[in-house]
Amino acid sequence: MHRFYVPDLPHEGALVALSDQEARHLTQVLRLELGDQVRVFDGRGRQHEARVEVAARQRAEVRVGAEAAAAPEVPVRLALAAALLKGDKFDDVVRDAAMLGVHVVHPLVTARTEVPAARAGKVSRVERWKRVSLNSVKQCGRAVVPDIEEPQTLADALTHLPRPLIALVEPSLAAGTSALPQRPDTATVLVGPEGGWSPAEVEALVAAGATLFSLGGRTLRADAAPLVALTALLWEWKAL
Amino acid sequence: MHRFYVPDLPHEGALVALSDQEARHLTQVLRLELGDQVRVFDGRGRQHEARVEVAARQRAEVRVGAEAAAAPEVPVRLALAAALLKGDKFDDVVRDAAMLGVHVVHPLVTARTEVPAARAGKVSRVERWKRVSLNSVKQCGRAVVPDIEEPQTLADALTHLPRPLIALVEPSLAAGTSALPQRPDTATVLVGPEGGWSPAEVEALVAAGATLFSLGGRTLRADAAPLVALTALLWEWKAL
Repeated sequence: MHRFYVPDLPHEGALVALSDQEARHLTQVLRLELGDQVRVFDGRGRQHEARVEVAARQRAEVRVGAEAAAAPEVPVRLALAAALLKGDKFDDVVRDAAMLGVHVVHPLVTARTEVPAARAGKVSRVERWKRVSLNSVKQCGRAVVPDIEEPQTLADALTHLPRPLIALVEPSLAAGTSALPQRPDTATVLVGPEGGWSPAEVEALVAAGATLFSLGGRTLRADAAPLVALTALLWEWKAL
Repeated sequence: MHRFYVPDLPHEGALVALSDQEARHLTQVLRLELGDQVRVFDGRGRQHEARVEVAARQRAEVRVGAEAAAAPEVPVRLALAAALLKGDKFDDVVRDAAMLGVHVVHPLVTARTEVPAARAGKVSRVERWKRVSLNSVKQCGRAVVPDIEEPQTLADALTHLPRPLIALVEPSLAAGTSALPQRPDTATVLVGPEGGWSPAEVEALVAAGATLFSLGGRTLRADAAPLVALTALLWEWKAL
């Protein structure tokens, strides 16, 4: 069943127009027609059945039907605070985080982040990650679209990230601190850049109360580390 | 420290020539010179220090030095039997499996595999996956290069895959069979294609004694499912 994102989703029985982008997808990519059954979701957890009532060149309207269950949300409200990566690799981080059930992604500019600050903060990049997040949600069946915050420094982020903080670190730093918290209601998972956290950042993480944990002796690719860390934690908490 | 693959690695003190591909990498990509320190590994777990003694245009020889510890191997000898995927996505499956510590990858042709059989079995594809596996190993620090078997059907594979078998299935099928085995010495993780296992394949898995497990309610991308499944199991076994 094809699913479309309608942020201002009206109640059952109402007729609603899709955004230009979603309308083009419905009419030109999927070539749906009058009467076709679809689903619409508001990005905050609500999803309904719907029926196509207008499918013109670049315009589409659907009649909202009964509520329809979306994929269940993870029972932990998870934030991912991950360092920006080179090239387009952060796209994959956003995509994987949305798939695994994260609620918000905080891109971090860290001491060893190898992305020019000017590029990191470009509005177009944040908009792009929001699209990546939405597309991933459509694929995995969630009705919640993770938000993408503006990139910020680790120091700034530490002042307001949801607690508890759980930071992925090198095995040598995690020794003796392997006691992860019991399943919390909210949590932030922090993952560093290709070159890892600087010593000062590790100190700042500890000072902020973060639990340091590691994922064994093999070096994970920076773009895969968030997915592996999130999976391990969700499995640990029986929340996957 | 740059690492090079030397399958027939001689003992300490010997001089050894790198393969054409590894030699080009040393001389033309990394531009290493006489006297530079590197490491060499044999793909089966042995790694040594080494020093460049010949670095010509397409030729490189190194003097083997003392043994050097590689990244520790996972304490479970893991096979991944994963269905072939469309496009180049199986490259990512191989890359991630090598990173996480798998010992061998068995590409599967399943009922719903959407890859033409002719293409699936092309020798050049297996050779390509072997290169992907090697490159991933170089990045993650292992000295063991996972082998890639020829693609085969699930039925053929089930006759000889290492036991216990642990198959990722839809949540509806895993109910009541969530009891994973205690950490074994060997195991095979089985993951289906984009469209999942056919009912007959699920029956064949059960008949072969496989434990069925699932990863919750959100739909995982087929190319990410093996990484998520392997991570969850290795974490469960405290083997990551």
